[in-house]
Amino acid sequence: MMEFLTQRPSEAALATVIASLKARFGERVTTNLSIRSTHANVLTWVAPQAPDAVVFPETTEEVSFIVKICAEHLIPVIPFGTGTSFEGHVNAPLGGISVDTSRMAKVLAVHTEDLDCVIEPGVTRKALNEHLRATGLFFPIDPGSDASLGGMVSTRASGTNAVRYGTMKDNVLALKVVLPNGEVMTTARRAKKSSAGYDLTRLMVGAEGTLGIITEITLRLAGIPEAISAGLCPFPSVKAACDATILTIQSGLPVARIELADELQVKAFNIHSGLGLNETPMLFVEFHGTDRGVEEQAERFGEIAQEFGGGPFEWATKPEERTRLWQARHDAYWSALSLKPGSKVIATDVCVPISRLAECVVETQEDIKASGLVAPIVGHVGDGNFHLTLLCDMDQPNEVETCRAFLHRLVERSLAMEGTCTGEHGVGQEKMKYLLKEHPPATLDVMRAIKRAIDPANIMNPGKIVTLT
Amino acid sequence: MMEFLTQRPSEAALATVIASLKARFGERVTTNLSIRSTHANVLTWVAPQAPDAVVFPETTEEVSFIVKICAEHLIPVIPFGTGTSFEGHVNAPLGGISVDTSRMAKVLAVHTEDLDCVIEPGVTRKALNEHLRATGLFFPIDPGSDASLGGMVSTRASGTNAVRYGTMKDNVLALKVVLPNGEVMTTARRAKKSSAGYDLTRLMVGAEGTLGIITEITLRLAGIPEAISAGLCPFPSVKAACDATILTIQSGLPVARIELADELQVKAFNIHSGLGLNETPMLFVEFHGTDRGVEEQAERFGEIAQEFGGGPFEWATKPEERTRLWQARHDAYWSALSLKPGSKVIATDVCVPISRLAECVVETQEDIKASGLVAPIVGHVGDGNFHLTLLCDMDQPNEVETCRAFLHRLVERSLAMEGTCTGEHGVGQEKMKYLLKEHPPATLDVMRAIKRAIDPANIMNPGKIVTLT
Repeated sequence: MMEFLTQRPSEAALATVIASLKARFGERVTTNLSIRSTHANVLTWVAPQAPDAVVFPETTEEVSFIVKICAEHLIPVIPFGTGTSFEGHVNAPLGGISVDTSRMAKVLAVHTEDLDCVIEPGVTRKALNEHLRATGLFFPIDPGSDASLGGMVSTRASGTNAVRYGTMKDNVLALKVVLPNGEVMTTARRAKKSSAGYDLTRLMVGAEGTLGIITEITLRLAGIPEAISAGLCPFPSVKAACDATILTIQSGLPVARIELADELQVKAFNIHSGLGLNETPMLFVEFHGTDRGVEEQAERFGEIAQEFGGGPFEWATKPEERTRLWQARHDAYWSALSLKPGSKVIATDVCVPISRLAECVVETQEDIKASGLVAPIVGHVGDGNFHLTLLCDMDQPNEVETCRAFLHRLVERSLAMEGTCTGEHGVGQEKMKYLLKEHPPATLDVMRAIKRAIDPANIMNPGKIVTLT
Repeated sequence: MMEFLTQRPSEAALATVIASLKARFGERVTTNLSIRSTHANVLTWVAPQAPDAVVFPETTEEVSFIVKICAEHLIPVIPFGTGTSFEGHVNAPLGGISVDTSRMAKVLAVHTEDLDCVIEPGVTRKALNEHLRATGLFFPIDPGSDASLGGMVSTRASGTNAVRYGTMKDNVLALKVVLPNGEVMTTARRAKKSSAGYDLTRLMVGAEGTLGIITEITLRLAGIPEAISAGLCPFPSVKAACDATILTIQSGLPVARIELADELQVKAFNIHSGLGLNETPMLFVEFHGTDRGVEEQAERFGEIAQEFGGGPFEWATKPEERTRLWQARHDAYWSALSLKPGSKVIATDVCVPISRLAECVVETQEDIKASGLVAPIVGHVGDGNFHLTLLCDMDQPNEVETCRAFLHRLVERSLAMEGTCTGEHGVGQEKMKYLLKEHPPATLDVMRAIKRAIDPANIMNPGKIVTLT
């Protein structure tokens, strides 16, 4: 049995590694406290655990150098994108070296005929789409925050467009990965599909940096649709909005986005973005296609909404109106704060089969009310996925306790409805305890066997997803 | 280091296991030679290697019993669906027990609101769609042959609808798997998406039965489109047909099927199915959507085809005409035989980025001609994937040698164009030698590490994808 990281490495080992990194990277490695602090978990309430140093590599070869020296001295390596994850993914519970990929932010190639591109992991979603603007193509996955693509791959991110364009698992063609031994693997070729061996691309998507550091990403792109129409549709109840969503999906309407905001979230939008909406459950929808196609989709959706007492539908036909609408939706996290200033925002997500969605959301709203909490809800309802933005006064221990118990019930509720403990945020540290409730023991055994097979020394982002014993 | 299967087990060990199986399964286990022979590879030229016995389990628990007893005695276990794979997947190079899933053919649940179903692995594609007929839903993945869904999962199958509906990797929500130690894991919940840990679903999809036996499958379904239109469009050259395909995809036309047949394949269709077509490259296309949407798509496609000298477009508006057209397309394998009766049909596939497709197909046609071979081509061109149906007189050693060398060049050509050695058929035995050409050594090391981690005794379908050393 080889050596195996189970506790914080010795100060001597850390000092040796940091000295070697300084020799190679100079000012691109730092132990500055404030920089280290921003590389710990800073969003939501997971307690921050800063790394011992942060290094800013610029090439795959540099990442390999870092990983090799950390492997030699059993020092944790924590991959870092933009730090917008919610469940403690970038924390360093055993200390170690945060590998910040922000200087690996080049778009290496755009293949317009193949509808794909090759990028470095530090490219952010917005930067990529800015780069693609002239090509008529775009990258559709949109989790809201301007996350790095490396982070989005690693958390299997999805977001508002997933109902039409899929999640990261559906839009990554190939990866270059520095493995925990410092070797470099590529998971696939640029062909659109392959049956050539185990699907290592999908194994790395959602692995949260526990199996290696992604240093190059080949992504599928989509054509910018000729026509886009978006709008807002009020509903008398969450159930009516969910039922309209189910029928929309079932009818095969290729809706690009269909997002629920509950009455409290609509109130938050009004306060934060001045939308001036009726405070009732709303669906934000968007259609992509040809002029005629979009018109037809919108008509059909209007009919479906009406069947469930929804409407009238308000269109945002101008691009600037559309942008304002989606900006408001993306600001759900921030707007929630306006409901209870001074609170900590705790964002979490679950996902259930769409047939159980209304029930799950309604029960959750009742639970929020009974618990005396403030927690608006937004949902990627086309996927059965919804988010809670729970507002917690961290100075009130009772409230913190109430919030914790409530979040626990939320996950239990989702699992009881054949759902998952996280639809798109990932496991990180906070949801490790739910994996064994979600899966039978044999499944966790396989996850641990894979972790042990690829990272036998347990240096890659230790303390996330599974723990080796 | 535990014991590890590297050679054919002893006759004594086999006899012990077969006796135990007979005690439990009675007539559902057989050593009958003709049944064993049909459980070896029988299509294409990979030499058949029959198992020592075939067992027909009916439940997950029975599969677990079989695997546990085989694990105890280090006996190979070879999962079997319908035996329609091409690259030797079901062969038993070290002997062992073929686990035939044909009696596990129940549709366990159809969730119309969630657009999913739960089935046993022996359900075939056609049987599933027959079962779904009344629901307004269908399972879109269509590899041509009436394969079992378990086999389709295991080879990461795709086929004619993949350009719109994705491949098996995109349409499996969850799996129940008997692991090589006999334990049962479920890979995911029924939620449409999840970020809860490593993607074991995708790891099993395409694992070709080397990591476990699939005993339950949760599949995504699609709504049967309101309108379908299909037709044929002749082109002056393969390049023109490929270029029209690229522009179709790039324009975001949501074509459901776009299939190339080269001039020789069209000739074969004429002989086999009496289609009476001009013997020039053809695209078979199909559009799914609303009445207006389909009409619009077809119009646009017609304009694109014309730009590249294609047309006139011939519509098959009646369902029976459409069925005839697609039946002809699906009979490509059999129709090819009519070009050179008495030959062995050797089916293989490669996949390249679509921008290289025309070049790859044209070079391959020139190679066929220069080699004096007969090999019509069909292609899922929207994905850059094409199939060769090579006709080989197995009594002529020189021709066999020429065919082998040609197939080798085909894979090399695909790899040189950033392609893969197989788009949808899988690795099996025949393409193992190409994995190391396709991927760097570190990638193969990871594949082997995963195989070793999950199947340390090497009993699950040994001699496929990777070899442990």
